[in-house]
Amino acid sequence: MELLENRIREDAEVLPGNILKVSNFLNHQIDVKLMDQMGEEFARLYKDTPVTKILTIESSGIAVAYSVAQKFGVPLVFAKKHKSSNVNEDVYSAKVWSFTHNQEYTVVVSKKYISSCDKILLVDDFLANGAALNGLIKIVGDAGAKVQGICIAIEKGFQNGGKELREKGFRVESLAIVDKMTDDGKIQFRA
Amino acid sequence: MELLENRIREDAEVLPGNILKVSNFLNHQIDVKLMDQMGEEFARLYKDTPVTKILTIESSGIAVAYSVAQKFGVPLVFAKKHKSSNVNEDVYSAKVWSFTHNQEYTVVVSKKYISSCDKILLVDDFLANGAALNGLIKIVGDAGAKVQGICIAIEKGFQNGGKELREKGFRVESLAIVDKMTDDGKIQFRA
Repeated sequence: MELLENRIREDAEVLPGNILKVSNFLNHQIDVKLMDQMGEEFARLYKDTPVTKILTIESSGIAVAYSVAQKFGVPLVFAKKHKSSNVNEDVYSAKVWSFTHNQEYTVVVSKKYISSCDKILLVDDFLANGAALNGLIKIVGDAGAKVQGICIAIEKGFQNGGKELREKGFRVESLAIVDKMTDDGKIQFRA
Repeated sequence: MELLENRIREDAEVLPGNILKVSNFLNHQIDVKLMDQMGEEFARLYKDTPVTKILTIESSGIAVAYSVAQKFGVPLVFAKKHKSSNVNEDVYSAKVWSFTHNQEYTVVVSKKYISSCDKILLVDDFLANGAALNGLIKIVGDAGAKVQGICIAIEKGFQNGGKELREKGFRVESLAIVDKMTDDGKIQFRA
């Protein structure tokens, strides 16, 4: 999506360690108009796909997911990060390894909010190694529901998450795929 | 707002300890259409108020705040919860006591995203004792910006937060004010 790529070029910061900082418009300050256009684009991409629910993880996935839910006119559910790995039987849960914080956390979704009838789009702001998404996929699977597709704002194409998910047969739509970043701030997008 | 009050009557759970659980439509599963109508109502209430930015706290404030930001056509900023109280000089910060988790946490906002020119609406899903909002008010004050008003989905009118903020001169608009809840699930709204 040219609009998002341009915005990344103008406004993102490349930090050492392959960090792409987009706090200016995506995950601390949020440009709601841009979000809205991203939601529109996801709706266009998945226009022939039946969707009953949008699922994301708190916190930085919520804004993108909201815009997608709005376009599809379906509820949004966000998985909650849980401090301990002890969860009760009212929730579906998955363990997720955070490469950013170098620790494992547990994500939970109340069993009330996903049923086996649900056709779900997963949404997140970033896709790198895919750990968070694989957690959500496990949760959807445990509920007997179906993942219809995955909506990502920015995919780090030089990490394996997207490739592996596509190889498993998931449809992954990323609005911008970064194939290369250099410490002097140059960003190369997949054509 | 009658729509929200009716939804609370139909869909909320009253749990022991004066807990009002609205995970079904407000802060775990989110009814985006309801959110949109709430945003519309806040826009009506503050229609004569200049607003340059919406500020909330992750995570459960984000969806309501998104809908308000969309109506005003301004950016949304969410304060982040910080694990340690050590913060760097690039952020405004405030300590907030969480009565729910019985511990103190720190919220931070990058100095880049609030300036002394900003006219800010604070948004949150709940107002009880006002601890989180007072943290946001401190942050806005530290930035030299102005709080134009406060937008709350559900205020617990039997706790002191709203009363104290109004006494300090803040305009607080709560779409539903619960004056009384009983363990058998009865909820009484302020007229």
